[in-house]
Amino acid sequence: MQRAVYDAEHEAYRDSVRRFVATEVVPHRERWEAAGRVDRELFRAAGKVGLLGISAPEEHGGGGNADFRFNAILNEELGAADVLGAGLGLSLQADIALPYLVDHCTPEQAARWLPGVVAGEAILALAMTEPGAGSDVAAITTRAVRDGEHYVVNGTKTFITNALNADLVITAVKTDPAAGRKGISLLVVEADRAGFRRGAKLAKVGQHAADTAELFFDDVRVPAANLLGEEGRGFYLMMNHLSQERLAVAVQATAQARRAYELCAEYAKSREAFGSPIGSFQHNRFVLAEMKTETEIAQSYVDRLLLAHSRGELDAVEAAQAKWWTTELCQRVVDRGVQLHGGYGYMAEYPIARAWTDSRIQTIYAGTTEVMKEIIGRSLGF
Amino acid sequence: MQRAVYDAEHEAYRDSVRRFVATEVVPHRERWEAAGRVDRELFRAAGKVGLLGISAPEEHGGGGNADFRFNAILNEELGAADVLGAGLGLSLQADIALPYLVDHCTPEQAARWLPGVVAGEAILALAMTEPGAGSDVAAITTRAVRDGEHYVVNGTKTFITNALNADLVITAVKTDPAAGRKGISLLVVEADRAGFRRGAKLAKVGQHAADTAELFFDDVRVPAANLLGEEGRGFYLMMNHLSQERLAVAVQATAQARRAYELCAEYAKSREAFGSPIGSFQHNRFVLAEMKTETEIAQSYVDRLLLAHSRGELDAVEAAQAKWWTTELCQRVVDRGVQLHGGYGYMAEYPIARAWTDSRIQTIYAGTTEVMKEIIGRSLGF
Amino acid sequence: MQRAVYDAEHEAYRDSVRRFVATEVVPHRERWEAAGRVDRELFRAAGKVGLLGISAPEEHGGGGNADFRFNAILNEELGAADVLGAGLGLSLQADIALPYLVDHCTPEQAARWLPGVVAGEAILALAMTEPGAGSDVAAITTRAVRDGEHYVVNGTKTFITNALNADLVITAVKTDPAAGRKGISLLVVEADRAGFRRGAKLAKVGQHAADTAELFFDDVRVPAANLLGEEGRGFYLMMNHLSQERLAVAVQATAQARRAYELCAEYAKSREAFGSPIGSFQHNRFVLAEMKTETEIAQSYVDRLLLAHSRGELDAVEAAQAKWWTTELCQRVVDRGVQLHGGYGYMAEYPIARAWTDSRIQTIYAGTTEVMKEIIGRSLGF
Amino acid sequence: MQRAVYDAEHEAYRDSVRRFVATEVVPHRERWEAAGRVDRELFRAAGKVGLLGISAPEEHGGGGNADFRFNAILNEELGAADVLGAGLGLSLQADIALPYLVDHCTPEQAARWLPGVVAGEAILALAMTEPGAGSDVAAITTRAVRDGEHYVVNGTKTFITNALNADLVITAVKTDPAAGRKGISLLVVEADRAGFRRGAKLAKVGQHAADTAELFFDDVRVPAANLLGEEGRGFYLMMNHLSQERLAVAVQATAQARRAYELCAEYAKSREAFGSPIGSFQHNRFVLAEMKTETEIAQSYVDRLLLAHSRGELDAVEAAQAKWWTTELCQRVVDRGVQLHGGYGYMAEYPIARAWTDSRIQTIYAGTTEVMKEIIGRSLGF
Repeated sequence: MQRAVYDAEHEAYRDSVRRFVATEVVPHRERWEAAGRVDRELFRAAGKVGLLGISAPEEHGGGGNADFRFNAILNEELGAADVLGAGLGLSLQADIALPYLVDHCTPEQAARWLPGVVAGEAILALAMTEPGAGSDVAAITTRAVRDGEHYVVNGTKTFITNALNADLVITAVKTDPAAGRKGISLLVVEADRAGFRRGAKLAKVGQHAADTAELFFDDVRVPAANLLGEEGRGFYLMMNHLSQERLAVAVQATAQARRAYELCAEYAKSREAFGSPIGSFQHNRFVLAEMKTETEIAQSYVDRLLLAHSRGELDAVEAAQAKWWTTELCQRVVDRGVQLHGGYGYMAEYPIARAWTDSRIQTIYAGTTEVMKEIIGRSLGF
Repeated sequence: MQRAVYDAEHEAYRDSVRRFVATEVVPHRERWEAAGRVDRELFRAAGKVGLLGISAPEEHGGGGNADFRFNAILNEELGAADVLGAGLGLSLQADIALPYLVDHCTPEQAARWLPGVVAGEAILALAMTEPGAGSDVAAITTRAVRDGEHYVVNGTKTFITNALNADLVITAVKTDPAAGRKGISLLVVEADRAGFRRGAKLAKVGQHAADTAELFFDDVRVPAANLLGEEGRGFYLMMNHLSQERLAVAVQATAQARRAYELCAEYAKSREAFGSPIGSFQHNRFVLAEMKTETEIAQSYVDRLLLAHSRGELDAVEAAQAKWWTTELCQRVVDRGVQLHGGYGYMAEYPIARAWTDSRIQTIYAGTTEVMKEIIGRSLGF
Repeated sequence: MQRAVYDAEHEAYRDSVRRFVATEVVPHRERWEAAGRVDRELFRAAGKVGLLGISAPEEHGGGGNADFRFNAILNEELGAADVLGAGLGLSLQADIALPYLVDHCTPEQAARWLPGVVAGEAILALAMTEPGAGSDVAAITTRAVRDGEHYVVNGTKTFITNALNADLVITAVKTDPAAGRKGISLLVVEADRAGFRRGAKLAKVGQHAADTAELFFDDVRVPAANLLGEEGRGFYLMMNHLSQERLAVAVQATAQARRAYELCAEYAKSREAFGSPIGSFQHNRFVLAEMKTETEIAQSYVDRLLLAHSRGELDAVEAAQAKWWTTELCQRVVDRGVQLHGGYGYMAEYPIARAWTDSRIQTIYAGTTEVMKEIIGRSLGF
Repeated sequence: MQRAVYDAEHEAYRDSVRRFVATEVVPHRERWEAAGRVDRELFRAAGKVGLLGISAPEEHGGGGNADFRFNAILNEELGAADVLGAGLGLSLQADIALPYLVDHCTPEQAARWLPGVVAGEAILALAMTEPGAGSDVAAITTRAVRDGEHYVVNGTKTFITNALNADLVITAVKTDPAAGRKGISLLVVEADRAGFRRGAKLAKVGQHAADTAELFFDDVRVPAANLLGEEGRGFYLMMNHLSQERLAVAVQATAQARRAYELCAEYAKSREAFGSPIGSFQHNRFVLAEMKTETEIAQSYVDRLLLAHSRGELDAVEAAQAKWWTTELCQRVVDRGVQLHGGYGYMAEYPIARAWTDSRIQTIYAGTTEVMKEIIGRSLGF
């Protein structure tokens, strides 16, 4: 399938990304998975080749380029190399967290934070979810009470990507508990502040290289100068950034589905049973045909949204559509891929097995499939 | 969803097509369905506004424009007006049969046949399928034996669209039974030749306005000058035209799915149960969200192929992918639409009910879903 | 698959049912479908061999036997002979409507109505659904106002089976509009009363032999002696009878699925393509294996409920489970059966085609799949 | 749902099994998973309470009872306690491997092996699968060459349950490589023989407590007296035992599905979002209704086969049907269960997460879903 979404500049960038993935990610994957986290060095290496700050202003070391297709390329290359899990933190930094800073920092904040973030010296986390507030973001209870030139923060966040490595935590807090979603604000909390504590790494089913953990805030005093955007606008800022986050997940899911298809097509050619390559059995051939068809259809839709986004026209409902459909597809594809691999599909060393465990979270994070369908359904106006 | 596939010229054409459908098709649909066929007059009306010969040379009255997007527009407008069934014969003529003539006629044949076809005076049928040869086209047994300047044709064809109205029947025949697929040729048989006979209209589950029937050839003498293309090349000509035929079906299926979604969204707003519009129930909202998502994803993929085809780059495997996926989707969507309509979904007068019966043939004709998957699967090279 | 649900007495009964179906139903099916209704004579013939009153007291000519397995046998045999549609009215009378009379008639009513019903002289209909009240039974608006020794009935019913043939219409009416579901009562309305009128037969997608129509009540005066059960208890009577109705539909759906499987297995053996029986293709073999597996699993569950019901232990939630699952299965099976038959699956004369259109209503009537899931879901106690 | 498959004797047995699971399995699960194997002591404990030799003759310490329902109870209780993974080795020993010994040992072999096996002193493994021979059992290449009173065994086995703990390995070998499936024999290889070697534990996606590994045979000399059954009959012995093995897997899968449903029903009651228990959302309610319905339908079918098997009437095709359908169902149920749990469904400590990874192998081992469908499809006689 010919794709029409990228031009020469993107393809040149892809070459450098591919080299980066091959030299800085792939060789360390297994070690990182055993350790339950990636090295901080990964971020510096990514910063060095310019992967982390594409959309940041040039004055702060960034690329000054808001074209999200560059971000998409990183995700595609991570997927093609079976290291989306190891790259999750990079994607979180570049695709999801950085835009909060780029869009809402004051000049002072930008000067303070962006150079480090772009260089990969400062690692970002985004702390929204709480034990009692997942899809229902407005239900968060982490509290920030104004006290002179500071906020005092108390609460617990969970399922936080980059939790162990993070230096700067963009944290959703309730500044006015009585005001519902209008009482939510965003505070950037530096990880070295007193009262800030990281939980143990959460034992997940997959994504073993991602340092997902809880974060605890006990009377953490954060300067009011760390407020991101206006007080009380946090919920709306988050909602505005979600479409790009969802598109990023759709890009990853599609890349992973395509990679799973390729692994399966390869396996079906080389693995024999009953004297023939298993791809010669009609059932397997149909499975592969279905994988290929649906993956290309997904790619086609994602490319359409990438183009729209590069024109500043990403629609929230369409992003939700892409998110749920490609992630459900990815899980369908990798699941059928496991089955096609037989017993080997259950062995952790096989990429298809890791794809199966890694991708299972995709229909849950960044808004569950059910939340996506609510967003779409509500847009119909009942 | 914004579509990027059409430009101003296409949209202007769409206006005239929409008027044609509203005035020449919609008012007659019910009568035609009861009669089991459309009026011949429909073709003349379509010819008059230039719908039948877009791709035919201008010297024969055509539009001289090979851009298939114009054909797509007719199918889309038929779908939007719930009359794809009544328009099936038009689509067969313009999208599927005409290209055989345009591409393979000698100048003499073109002069003889095209003006009438373009004007809607001569109605086309394409006779491939036989009682014993459906997906397996090479298994046809209709025989054409050369006898001087004529062929003598014997055999039976079935499931032929436009069978009762047809004036010119492009007929697949075996000219060399020993040569397998290399022994198949195409002959244009005029319906007034001795020995040519039409069967009774076949009682179908849906598509009631389409005059589908058997055709019988008993010692029909056809001039050798009616041979289309070279002798023995018939199988290859058919294969070459199938991609466009499949894209046409994909366009129809997607249009029908979209229309079903719109009918359902409308119904879900106006129909109440337990004191609320039924669209307010989460299950229905999710169903609608799924319909919308998948229909737009299908449209996105079909549009991609339409653009490729307009550049002369339609890929056979991609056409097969579009064909099976959109037709299966269409059936899924209309089936869920029937369910959403409750008892009314089972009433023949409701468009969703007709869409359900009409669309069921889509995964069967023009190559079944299973044949499409074989085409895709085999392209993987096992 | 061996079934353990029937004993010798049932199998003897099955023989007589099979003869009845072969001689009194099958030969007339086509004529009845064209006419849009069965002959009244069918009911008399059924009465003669004792099919209509198994559960009615012997003193009124019935079998005095509440064992629902006898009813199940009639449905199974109708399914095995591809005439479930033609037999729908019989099933309505014997399985669904008669129990209302048997359970709730006063001695006077029983003596007045049961002999005719059992003999097939009096044809029953059950009139619940209204244009504005389907799943939401409590929303009916047909009004019965007490006026001395009569009720005066006004309203409209729709989707009524046996509407054209019915002599006695068990009608759900609002006797106290302010009381919600506690204001609903059941009245038996004789079809020859002034002001009672039948609509034209509804044009349905399938079930063409079933005389489904609207019924209109314009100031129909009905003796108070025709009240079935107590005033205000109608809703609860209906709810109590629904489990058996749903089990009856589950029996029909399973019989139809099994029959579809058998038709397909037979077709896959006899139909050839590419030089082999189509059952030799792995995909088709898998489809047949899936059909067989799921149909037998369904049968196993339905048999379990039939045994429970014969012990008086039919559980409403389990009946709902059987209803939705077997009807969805039946539609899945017949749909795949249509596909397996290729073009022939779309021809109305093929039993698989009729099964496809006939069975589509099964997930809608007697409580939609969605209503079943609500019943089950609510039983979980959220 | 009332089950009719067990009587008082079974239920008494269940009590002792439940105690065993609670005291001897549950407290160690986490440690075993971390270690990648269960303690050998588990087998001795199981032997002590009589779980391992129900079907073995009483003279060798067994229960002398071929009623497989007792075995089913162990699997059900393991499932109910979320420890099917930890219990896999027990199930392998009692349900799958022991029957080979009980059915085919000579009196001398029985006296030699059974007492230890029944007591849990000797742990069994069954070594069929090889790196190049999975579903295609006849393709094994492990060679046993007769040399006087010994066989000399060379080859590699993989995916072997109990590989690290096993004392006696029932090994499929080629005694006559030219004879295809008629050249396969079964040899019992003691683990302390020279040349026998265990590979490292395979890193699997789930079932972490199961010591699955490769086994290597390098010139292992095994006494001819260890031949199980006749030379050349190994393939047929294996085929004969597969139906019971598949039924065992079906019992496990159904137990796991039911447990997943219960976990979800519980979670849906206690977890809140947007101010209500998540079970109050229609979508979740429908998901739970579907889980409950399908799990009970599966249980109903499995119970039917358990009863048949207790009468000695287990049909191979029906066992295949139960195997593929219940395992596919189990995966569907646990997958939806993960989704319903949101982020917590991805956390390894949650039973639903472990059920998701543990159950994924069920559609692969003991014959893949595809092999099951072949068995069923071929029984139809194409």
